Amino acid sequence: VLAELEGVEALEIPFGDGFRLPAGLATAGAALTMVCNPNAPSGTWIPIEDLAELAGKVTGILLIDEAYVDFAPHNAGHLVKEFDNVMILRSLSKGYSLAGLRFGYAIAQKNVIAGLMKVKDSYNVDAIALTLATAAIKDQAYFEKNIERIKRQRQALTEQLRTLGFDVSDSHTNFIQARARAGSAAAIHQQLVQRNIYVRHYDIPGLRDKIRISIGTEEQNDRLIAALREIL
Amino acid sequence: VLAELEGVEALEIPFGDGFRLPAGLATAGAALTMVCNPNAPSGTWIPIEDLAELAGKVTGILLIDEAYVDFAPHNAGHLVKEFDNVMILRSLSKGYSLAGLRFGYAIAQKNVIAGLMKVKDSYNVDAIALTLATAAIKDQAYFEKNIERIKRQRQALTEQLRTLGFDVSDSHTNFIQARARAGSAAAIHQQLVQRNIYVRHYDIPGLRDKIRISIGTEEQNDRLIAALREIL
Repeated sequence: VLAELEGVEALEIPFGDGFRLPAGLATAGAALTMVCNPNAPSGTWIPIEDLAELAGKVTGILLIDEAYVDFAPHNAGHLVKEFDNVMILRSLSKGYSLAGLRFGYAIAQKNVIAGLMKVKDSYNVDAIALTLATAAIKDQAYFEKNIERIKRQRQALTEQLRTLGFDVSDSHTNFIQARARAGSAAAIHQQLVQRNIYVRHYDIPGLRDKIRISIGTEEQNDRLIAALREIL
Repeated sequence: VLAELEGVEALEIPFGDGFRLPAGLATAGAALTMVCNPNAPSGTWIPIEDLAELAGKVTGILLIDEAYVDFAPHNAGHLVKEFDNVMILRSLSKGYSLAGLRFGYAIAQKNVIAGLMKVKDSYNVDAIALTLATAAIKDQAYFEKNIERIKRQRQALTEQLRTLGFDVSDSHTNFIQARARAGSAAAIHQQLVQRNIYVRHYDIPGLRDKIRISIGTEEQNDRLIAALREIL
């Protein structure tokens, strides 16, 4: 969307089989190569060594969007030290459960950040968001408890959905993709909406036979499972 | 700054004598004509009927930045009903004393706002800023008390500065321009900085013989006057 607004050519290169990095990404000659890892909405994850290899091949900046990384096995933070063309984006909306705060940040070497500063507005993020984000990042004990809680619920929900007959691959994010064996994902989505339960259904290749479920609280997940039992 | 970033031609048309609207503004043929009213850093104010006349003459949008309008005799709000090419910007940083919140808004007819929505980010302002801004705007009694407090301090500070020998014209904002008769504005500014009192000095035509003072609390204003007495 932003590239279109700025009149910049944007090239979309589809994932390879099993949501692996496509070979075309390294040879596209882009000024900016973007990879979302873990990826949304697929929930899949690219090993960091594949990203390191890509960083060495691309001609411009490799931007790794790590919005969901707090739920993944590893992050790519150390690549910023090894590569002067890697920039990492993080968000407090997922792992810190602070979506309402709209607070994110970038990690890159000084000269890359200096490029961003050229087009930054004069004023900074609001004082309350800065204070809350700082407090949240400092309280790693609470953060880790939050992540563990979400991972535990993710595991429980995955097992319950499998028992109900869904194909669920292991998630590296705070959401699950559940494939309805009967191929009725759109219908299930509609019937959940009628019960005021909001999951996502994407009518795009590779996803139209699945529903995407954000991990809720234990009560919310129980309500979802009860509703799915009724529907099925 | 933004025009330069976007590769858009920007034309600066200086104010006329006494900070009146210059004739060239109406005939420039601009897609967007911007007027800050009250103006910063001059603190001067254009009568609303002059803005109405300009709105009828310009070829594109007339954007009136009313960041300081809460301290002025009138605002241009009703022009949005009369003219489909008028857009007004407001801020909670001045009249509501919520500079840390970074919350502003625009007022215009629906089709103009629709144009802005085309380039708006997917996500909205953060939830805390929205909640606080809503609460602040709803509490008009507190807001009016705040404005009266600042205006009262502005009047007191204006009189004290005149007694000290400064030329001070009546302000329509939350700051004062004080002309040092001895022509020593830069020196006074430096000596205030040494006392950890921060006012502004602009080394630009029409302002280099003045210091700009934001209206503080009664205690802050008293400290400033005491320091100026020492310096002079």
